[in-house]
Amino acid sequence: MSFKLKGKVVFFATGNIHKFNEARAVLTQHGLSAGMLRAKTVEIQSGSLTEIAVASAQDAYKRCHLPLIVEDAGLFIDALKGFPGPYAAYVYKTLGNKGLLKLLENVQDRKATFRSAIAYCDSETDEIICFLGEVSGTITPEERARDSESAFGFDPIFQPEASSRTFAEMTLQEKNGVSHRARALHKFAEWYLKQA
Amino acid sequence: MSFKLKGKVVFFATGNIHKFNEARAVLTQHGLSAGMLRAKTVEIQSGSLTEIAVASAQDAYKRCHLPLIVEDAGLFIDALKGFPGPYAAYVYKTLGNKGLLKLLENVQDRKATFRSAIAYCDSETDEIICFLGEVSGTITPEERARDSESAFGFDPIFQPEASSRTFAEMTLQEKNGVSHRARALHKFAEWYLKQA
Repeated sequence: MSFKLKGKVVFFATGNIHKFNEARAVLTQHGLSAGMLRAKTVEIQSGSLTEIAVASAQDAYKRCHLPLIVEDAGLFIDALKGFPGPYAAYVYKTLGNKGLLKLLENVQDRKATFRSAIAYCDSETDEIICFLGEVSGTITPEERARDSESAFGFDPIFQPEASSRTFAEMTLQEKNGVSHRARALHKFAEWYLKQA
Repeated sequence: MSFKLKGKVVFFATGNIHKFNEARAVLTQHGLSAGMLRAKTVEIQSGSLTEIAVASAQDAYKRCHLPLIVEDAGLFIDALKGFPGPYAAYVYKTLGNKGLLKLLENVQDRKATFRSAIAYCDSETDEIICFLGEVSGTITPEERARDSESAFGFDPIFQPEASSRTFAEMTLQEKNGVSHRARALHKFAEWYLKQA
């Protein structure tokens, strides 16, 4: 790691630097240091976000033996029966935002929910704890982003409730004020600080 | 099971009666008896069809201790960067054929490939053997089926090369003459008959 870890530390197993930066900002608010662990995690295909996060955390722990969190996030669009759900990463890679917008052409109901499951693991036992966060919103008619840096994933087409901007039009701090990921991370951090 | 198993037997772990009926017809041609095993199999999320089939077969064997095959199939649409790929079942449940047709509206390139991976397992060791079959074709402009019974999965929108009919317009025998699944099963059956 190229930065110093101070105080209580947790590692975030992810290959996504955007997710890591968001998580670090939240954890820092709680006085926690975060390290990025570029572990490729096994993902089970069927199952809820929680099941996927738990299985991935167990798998990552087996290989790293460090106290770590893994996140599984999903975007659930009401009019598409929850699609893309937990398959957000694959669908982003193939259909992208343009594909989702095409699927919603002439569709009135634009409601969607972003959900995040954070699983924490620090031993080989089955003691894994999971924290959930979610945010409701709508799918916008077109992509809107502040700049290319902020336009990651489905952020340019998701507008959280009570906001006139998409996730991609917000600063990292603004997004962390309302996002599913930040909500799950706050729950984790509060719990983690109480542990011995 | 409500039918008698004669000769050499193999079990097909699947919850899909259509798949089982197709498989039984192919295996019968080789003099093999097939039993349907309604085992819910664990599916890993990332990975090729082969990896998914192998992991599912190992998992099913652990619970049943019977010589068995598991199939993982996928539909890979060129213009959608391979989507839905191995996530065919989930995408069928959420977007359905209408969703795929909407994604391909005004798209010239309709090329697609159906792929099947059949994994066989008969012990707790890691000796798993896998057989692949595939068929090229196109995505039709609209759904076409013989009847509701034949219209399962993406069959009503997939027309194999050198045919003017979709999979769902064919009889089971006709479909087995060209399908990805039948091709993989023939390979399996030929190998299986040579085993002691």
